[in-house]
Amino acid sequence: MSKYSTAEETIVALATAPGVGAIAVIRLSGKEAFSIASKMFKGKDPQKQESHTLHFGTIREGERIIDEVVLGLFKGPKSFTKEDVVEISCHGSQYIVKEIIQLSLKLGARLAKPGEFTMRAFMNGQFDLAQAEAVADLINADSEAAHSAALSQMRGGFSQEIGSLRTELINFASLIELELDFSEEDVEFAQRDELRTLVERLYKVIGKLLKSFDYGNVIKKGIPTVIAGKPNAGKSTLLNALLNEEKAIVSDIPGTTRDFIEDEMVIDGVSFRFIDTAGIRETIDKIEAMGVAKTHEKIGQASLILYLFDLSTDSINEVLQEVNRLENLGKPFIAVGNKIDIAPQDKVDALRKNDHFVFISAGELENIDDLKEKISEKVHLENFKTGDTMVTNARHYEALLRTQSALQDVLRGLNNQVTNDFLAMDIRQALHHLGEITGEITTDDLLGNIFSKFCIGK
Amino acid sequence: MSKYSTAEETIVALATAPGVGAIAVIRLSGKEAFSIASKMFKGKDPQKQESHTLHFGTIREGERIIDEVVLGLFKGPKSFTKEDVVEISCHGSQYIVKEIIQLSLKLGARLAKPGEFTMRAFMNGQFDLAQAEAVADLINADSEAAHSAALSQMRGGFSQEIGSLRTELINFASLIELELDFSEEDVEFAQRDELRTLVERLYKVIGKLLKSFDYGNVIKKGIPTVIAGKPNAGKSTLLNALLNEEKAIVSDIPGTTRDFIEDEMVIDGVSFRFIDTAGIRETIDKIEAMGVAKTHEKIGQASLILYLFDLSTDSINEVLQEVNRLENLGKPFIAVGNKIDIAPQDKVDALRKNDHFVFISAGELENIDDLKEKISEKVHLENFKTGDTMVTNARHYEALLRTQSALQDVLRGLNNQVTNDFLAMDIRQALHHLGEITGEITTDDLLGNIFSKFCIGK
Repeated sequence: MSKYSTAEETIVALATAPGVGAIAVIRLSGKEAFSIASKMFKGKDPQKQESHTLHFGTIREGERIIDEVVLGLFKGPKSFTKEDVVEISCHGSQYIVKEIIQLSLKLGARLAKPGEFTMRAFMNGQFDLAQAEAVADLINADSEAAHSAALSQMRGGFSQEIGSLRTELINFASLIELELDFSEEDVEFAQRDELRTLVERLYKVIGKLLKSFDYGNVIKKGIPTVIAGKPNAGKSTLLNALLNEEKAIVSDIPGTTRDFIEDEMVIDGVSFRFIDTAGIRETIDKIEAMGVAKTHEKIGQASLILYLFDLSTDSINEVLQEVNRLENLGKPFIAVGNKIDIAPQDKVDALRKNDHFVFISAGELENIDDLKEKISEKVHLENFKTGDTMVTNARHYEALLRTQSALQDVLRGLNNQVTNDFLAMDIRQALHHLGEITGEITTDDLLGNIFSKFCIGK
Repeated sequence: MSKYSTAEETIVALATAPGVGAIAVIRLSGKEAFSIASKMFKGKDPQKQESHTLHFGTIREGERIIDEVVLGLFKGPKSFTKEDVVEISCHGSQYIVKEIIQLSLKLGARLAKPGEFTMRAFMNGQFDLAQAEAVADLINADSEAAHSAALSQMRGGFSQEIGSLRTELINFASLIELELDFSEEDVEFAQRDELRTLVERLYKVIGKLLKSFDYGNVIKKGIPTVIAGKPNAGKSTLLNALLNEEKAIVSDIPGTTRDFIEDEMVIDGVSFRFIDTAGIRETIDKIEAMGVAKTHEKIGQASLILYLFDLSTDSINEVLQEVNRLENLGKPFIAVGNKIDIAPQDKVDALRKNDHFVFISAGELENIDDLKEKISEKVHLENFKTGDTMVTNARHYEALLRTQSALQDVLRGLNNQVTNDFLAMDIRQALHHLGEITGEITTDDLLGNIFSKFCIGK
């Protein structure tokens, strides 16, 4: 833990987003937080004030005033890090932020490393490792589904589930270890049948958690979607139509408008990531040429394909041929007929019989909601909103995989009637991997790796 | 005041910079701030808590938890706006910010307009108009000089100076108005000699303030500087050499590193704005051709010219010829001899006699400090740091110009022995323009114009 372990030191960092705002918040945490604040703050002496109070005054370096600020005081352990914390709310100028941080450094603080505030919160028992990791996910969540998964994990939902599995296994493990102590006496504390039942149940629960990663992972990264179609089918108009509706929701809240990435959007609370589709038409042709078995990489990445065609120009035969190709790919897809406002009615009627079709006008914003509904249906959006615990973190997924494998060893051992010490070893292994998730088992490397991905100030 | 006057309403906005950070702060201000907070916050009821206290809890919409937050409570008039203010410190996710603001809107708040918090602070007498304007300047200040000018203005330095001028004039004006009331009786309350002395003094002070705008204006916008020289003289190496040193100062504070604009930098606490110099060499040639009187626009904009030449290749004659041209332009300039590390010593010795020269190696970072010192000397950087009140705002400058012109009319009237009512009119005019600066005299248009330039949330 060499990189982070100097909890004796008081750390400082900008806690709000960098850039210009009305205000910015600088956070100090550690033993000297109050005394450092006291040295630069002219107003009521922070060291003599109650916890959880706010104080107006000025930050000064000698006689020079740097800014008028409000101090927020949190005395440990009633703070985010459980240490003494001072939050300095100053004017949102980068110059002022720089000056106040530099002054803090002069007065004995040091710059916080990425994620160090959260790391300290974890080290001081504010929450476990899975919860700490959820803080970063929460900040980066940009859809309802990602947000609710991260929030539930941060509030301990996932940890509780892992914790209770672990407790059951620990109870059993200790009985087996007890048997080992009394091995000469041939006492059997742990019923092997009960152990098998327990392990089989755990195995099943972990299997379910592992499966949830399929959803959990795309919740974080977005559902990979390909829009295929001829260049003039209206792909960018369609993207804009989908995008504009979402944009409209947030655009009347200035300052919160996201920089929309053209190829990413939220539909019905879930993120979709549109994969660059230049030449997809040719891609499908090639796939056809190479045989359907050998799916092209791009199509391979996709969880959903939108096949966009022009109702006003493309022939029924051509369209049905493409749909046939797509069916052979074996992926969820939707055939989106564009320009319904100028399409011949008989063509629409002919295609309507097929359940894969939706008819829209991207330019006139017609039936966009129908399309969204269809998308939601095809990717089973309801599965993203079960409220069930979901594995969203690759590290957790791997630890669960290893737990599962250890449990498999236990079951195999039971089948082969191995001795207790072998069983105990495998159970300990399973416990170890479960403990890695919540941080009962940690290494410096693991912690360094996790927290270095955080932003500074968190 | 139609656009802003609905102070009955409670306003909400993101107060910190947009983008992802560890935390974000959302600010509510107005009569309903506490009751709105109370409806969405699960924790201690904000309405029953003391002012200037902090409270941990969750923001909920119905049963759905949006985030774990800390509320900061400020009861009016002890707040920035002098109204009831609640600051919600949430996780710095754009999704969460959007959700909390939308929830506030549902509960009866409305989105704040640009600068509306500061506008309310002004309307409620927290500070005058010049101080309010300084808040925006303070946030945008990116150099020590700009910061200290804005801070001093925000803290009332400039307003006090204007205020005391105005008070003196008001005292005199009321004596003259008194004479008007008693005009039949031919009483003279106001000594005309005293009035002349006063007006002459005010005229002088205002003249000094007007002059300070030369400095105040560049403090905000940066000192316009041209780097002239042949393409291979090392212009971009020089910019990098100057830039790197400044960058190094802030680069160890992550999150505060500015996006450096290539053509802008801070030297010794003052901003310099480098004007694109492509083809400046030809520019100087052309100026020569057209006659020195007709200075080219780019050179015309500059407050300083850096003439950069290559010591290793350019001949003494060529260099002295250019310096001669520059002398004829009548602008402050520095002749910067680059590549001193590979320059013939006799050439350097020959040029050194001329006070305009500095010798550096931009590539080897040699003597960069000498150059900075020379720059500082040429543009009289000491004048930017007098601590004297400085006019930095074009609106104030114009109001002062009009005041000056009104005072001129007063003096002219005194010389021509005009009657008291004419004098009173001109004095009232001067008072009017002075009052515009601090906001004793305002119009809807004026206020709308000033505050609409603020960012949302301030």
